[in-house]
Amino acid sequence: MATQEISTLQTIASRLRVHSLRSTSEAGSGHPTSCLSAAELVSAVFFHAMRFDPADPANPNNDRFVLSKGHAAPVLYAALAEAGVWPTESLLSLRKITSNLEGHPTPRIPWVGAATGSLGQGLSVGVGMALNGKCLDQSDYRVYVLLGDGEIAEGGVWEAAALASYYQLDNLVAIIDVNGLGQSQRTMYDHDIEVYAKRFAAFGWEACTVDGHNLEAILTALDAAQAVKGRPALIVARTLKGKGVSFLEDREGWHGKPLKKGEELESALREVSSNGDDGPFLVARPAASTAAADTASSAFPEPTYQLGDKVATRSAYGTALAKLGGVDPRVVALDGDTKNSTFAEAFLKAHKDRYFECFIAEQNMVGAAVGLAACGKVPFVSTFAAFLTRAFDHIRMAAISGVSIKYVGSHCGVSIGEDGPSQMGLEDLAMMRAIPNSTVFYPSDAVAAERLTALAATLKGATYIRTSRPATPVLYLNTEAFPVGGSKTLRASGSDRLTIVAAGVTLHEALQAYEMLKAAGVVVRVIDAYSVKPIDAQGLLHAAAQTNNTVVVVEDHYYDGGLGDAVLNAVAAHGVRVHKIAVTEVPRSGKPEELLDAYGISARRIVERVKTLTA
Amino acid sequence: MATQEISTLQTIASRLRVHSLRSTSEAGSGHPTSCLSAAELVSAVFFHAMRFDPADPANPNNDRFVLSKGHAAPVLYAALAEAGVWPTESLLSLRKITSNLEGHPTPRIPWVGAATGSLGQGLSVGVGMALNGKCLDQSDYRVYVLLGDGEIAEGGVWEAAALASYYQLDNLVAIIDVNGLGQSQRTMYDHDIEVYAKRFAAFGWEACTVDGHNLEAILTALDAAQAVKGRPALIVARTLKGKGVSFLEDREGWHGKPLKKGEELESALREVSSNGDDGPFLVARPAASTAAADTASSAFPEPTYQLGDKVATRSAYGTALAKLGGVDPRVVALDGDTKNSTFAEAFLKAHKDRYFECFIAEQNMVGAAVGLAACGKVPFVSTFAAFLTRAFDHIRMAAISGVSIKYVGSHCGVSIGEDGPSQMGLEDLAMMRAIPNSTVFYPSDAVAAERLTALAATLKGATYIRTSRPATPVLYLNTEAFPVGGSKTLRASGSDRLTIVAAGVTLHEALQAYEMLKAAGVVVRVIDAYSVKPIDAQGLLHAAAQTNNTVVVVEDHYYDGGLGDAVLNAVAAHGVRVHKIAVTEVPRSGKPEELLDAYGISARRIVERVKTLTA
Repeated sequence: MATQEISTLQTIASRLRVHSLRSTSEAGSGHPTSCLSAAELVSAVFFHAMRFDPADPANPNNDRFVLSKGHAAPVLYAALAEAGVWPTESLLSLRKITSNLEGHPTPRIPWVGAATGSLGQGLSVGVGMALNGKCLDQSDYRVYVLLGDGEIAEGGVWEAAALASYYQLDNLVAIIDVNGLGQSQRTMYDHDIEVYAKRFAAFGWEACTVDGHNLEAILTALDAAQAVKGRPALIVARTLKGKGVSFLEDREGWHGKPLKKGEELESALREVSSNGDDGPFLVARPAASTAAADTASSAFPEPTYQLGDKVATRSAYGTALAKLGGVDPRVVALDGDTKNSTFAEAFLKAHKDRYFECFIAEQNMVGAAVGLAACGKVPFVSTFAAFLTRAFDHIRMAAISGVSIKYVGSHCGVSIGEDGPSQMGLEDLAMMRAIPNSTVFYPSDAVAAERLTALAATLKGATYIRTSRPATPVLYLNTEAFPVGGSKTLRASGSDRLTIVAAGVTLHEALQAYEMLKAAGVVVRVIDAYSVKPIDAQGLLHAAAQTNNTVVVVEDHYYDGGLGDAVLNAVAAHGVRVHKIAVTEVPRSGKPEELLDAYGISARRIVERVKTLTA
Repeated sequence: MATQEISTLQTIASRLRVHSLRSTSEAGSGHPTSCLSAAELVSAVFFHAMRFDPADPANPNNDRFVLSKGHAAPVLYAALAEAGVWPTESLLSLRKITSNLEGHPTPRIPWVGAATGSLGQGLSVGVGMALNGKCLDQSDYRVYVLLGDGEIAEGGVWEAAALASYYQLDNLVAIIDVNGLGQSQRTMYDHDIEVYAKRFAAFGWEACTVDGHNLEAILTALDAAQAVKGRPALIVARTLKGKGVSFLEDREGWHGKPLKKGEELESALREVSSNGDDGPFLVARPAASTAAADTASSAFPEPTYQLGDKVATRSAYGTALAKLGGVDPRVVALDGDTKNSTFAEAFLKAHKDRYFECFIAEQNMVGAAVGLAACGKVPFVSTFAAFLTRAFDHIRMAAISGVSIKYVGSHCGVSIGEDGPSQMGLEDLAMMRAIPNSTVFYPSDAVAAERLTALAATLKGATYIRTSRPATPVLYLNTEAFPVGGSKTLRASGSDRLTIVAAGVTLHEALQAYEMLKAAGVVVRVIDAYSVKPIDAQGLLHAAAQTNNTVVVVEDHYYDGGLGDAVLNAVAAHGVRVHKIAVTEVPRSGKPEELLDAYGISARRIVERVKTLTA
């Protein structure tokens, strides 16, 4: 396989510098000095180490590249131009609203599997891609991740580092561009490259240090990295921010600053330009793509519950996930040492090879899921709902990546009881509803939990399934369907005074409240809003119109951002009066039933509220 | 200073085991085996190493203790009982709704500075407390943090580890209880204590390993830790989960399981009980408390802007923070390598000793702020609004702690322009509104930004200030007051067709829209909703009533959870029609004005929308 000579790689590095300077100056914004420090590294990775087909970004045998230091996007775009992916002229469209070459890389570019730009996340994405290659596809592609040094402070990097060595990901090569300068000051360790090497070595990596502008040394390191077995490899490269331009090199105050077009830019270009060949330049190729993409192979086996069985929705989730794994080979599961609580363990038992224990490290778990999704897998990621907040930035970035991930949060609400507020998911609906175009499900029984889990596998983007800790009665027949954006009317009559909307644990409280109210001569409608987003606006409006335009929403969630706001948005414009009942303060330990009552969402408290509204 | 003999410490350890078993059995829930592994460690820390006054939890000279492995709460409560803080009988109230002894520690207990229970956060809290002692109060108290081994996988721990050694926190002692068992399986490293020691040593700590059930070794290690200078100290203790009870020791499947009252519990108690003395036991005392608590010393100096000056609210924030630091000695600032963008650097320049650079590690930044707040400081924590999502779990736990922290997120919305979506805060209002009893401010000009920053310093709980990147005209006189829950009506007449509610960048767009609409014969009211939470419900209702009960809310934020929902909640019940304009998809790079227009929130697009509503 042909690779480039050092002199050619140096020419390429110069060209990458020229492109980075020109494109950011043209855009009037961007991070050229962060690109300049990485030029030799990127040249060597793309034109010596990696095997990929510039004409076929979807070839599953391509080596992967993740630019964790996403603000260096221009140098990535430049490398792809020099590989012939697009003309170098197009680099001048950087950051324009009409261009796919955004300020930080997004998958508008097929070469970018996952969006980066929020630092410290790229290594997790790389871990996911490496897990896919080594453990799932048994492919020999490699994953290269280029990080900055400032972002090594991010805990997510260390979560990824630990898991990468635990899973012996010797198809993963990380490179740190240590230019010593962060955004607002020098980094903690400046140019002390040994610190990084020592730390990653302590985390089980094979680590070496190089002069990041010495191509010979870089190539030696990359070749050595490819030969490492049983552990991931790290190359710590000492570089200079702004390398190649005398008035930029290692100077503070130039982060995120483009050069002004005119003499400032021209003088810099004079310094970095080379007399070498023009591109495009050849890259090493992978094997041709042969495998067809997996798809689901058969229908999801129906649930098998009896009405009235007491089953926790978290348990039914586990059952469903295991069944799903049996009919869809793309489904994989990740959990953060809570699998016996979330019931992801059912998937582990049934499909050991597709389960990834991520330990107590939720950020990396989500980042790895992004990497797996970028490789065509269908990841279900579970932990306690409360702990999904640990990964909100990764969930946010996953949405920017446009990948499809199913998040499953168990132990929602005060209904978990004595463990207390640190373990209670009370803001998870708010978090997941905020993600644009997300889907949010909140099943109230085992049948719904199974059906919605199966449905989630087919949906695009972010899907969230909220599960509960306590066992609750099965309400639906096994054949019941639960479409996206639907709801279920569980109690209705011609004389309903108002409609109660609920889901999960409070749906069961509402059904009890129904009986208590009925006994007191007050008949109400009860709706199970299992699809929190999109919500069944039509259904709710219809019910409201028949029930005095009065709706009571009760949820085991904080007051802002949850089911109540979903309902409010759906019906308020039509003159429907919405009364929200939710948890309005930080709760505390206690028995589940005591807490439901103390925080206003028990059957008794619902009855109280309805009575005041129907007095 | 008197400390206890080893035999006494062993007796205490036995008593801690008895209490942990009894209290969790009584509660019917809890994590006794996690307590049993830590008994010698806790005995040694409380009754040999720490100096504190059991009668005076507020003594600022007390050593601090943070139980990072918060699920071991019963052993902490037991230690406090054995120190005489409360009677041992009260331990049986564990997890009851009437008791302060919650499932995981919360500051209902004055000895608990910060709530724990979401793993991997305690070391950050300890870092904050240590920074306070070493850098601010120049006190010689020490901070002890007890961690579990499973939580070492959390990235937040490594953020804390790095910053602790960077700041040479030799008043910080961390102890890891390595019992090898996580929640759902054995940890990544089981009993390989050298791995932990090696990693922390690589992170600059003085690390040693001990048998965690050998008190002599533990005492030696604790004494050595106290003598370490210039770096934090770590003791890695090899322990057995369930130690002391033969049928529990090192057994899988016992995490989070109490023993059944009756023979199961009794047989365990027989094994762990000792014949030693009863408590309470003496602890070493600190110096008596002498210092009076700091308070703000003088009035905040007024802003000094001219109407029409173009100033970014992020810049005004920096100015205000520096002034605030001059009148309130408790104010401290933390930032995550964005100080030149958030303008926290103004505080650094003015009050170097009270500024803490936290580098690119937002989780630890928030956790450290919690530690500082627990020590009576008034922390302002800043980064890009988008990156505050990185710390959502820490923000969540800070709310459970009930501490007062001011979060400041800059670079909100698509208005930041070409950097693109990874840098845009678009869900930050949703996140911060979900926190119970939070305050959320969104200043539209420099005067408001300064006033609200000064006001924020006086507020309890979580306060969030959202700042914008672009420079915008000063709208208010320097003397204008901005009360919590207020709003400002900027344009009003007797014939307003509807009310536009906005804040920040879109408030300026709305003012431009006002002019364009007026020229077209459509007069509207414009309200600056600078207090997003609590929102000025009365003011909005009043305006709506005068303007055809029609309100248009426009925000540079995603559609769910932001200003629009705040308005909806305030007015919908009263028949006001609310039309929300917000960003409804993941945005992209482009010029700020192009993006505002593309995503529907520019002046032009507001005009378009208003015209359809008033046609």
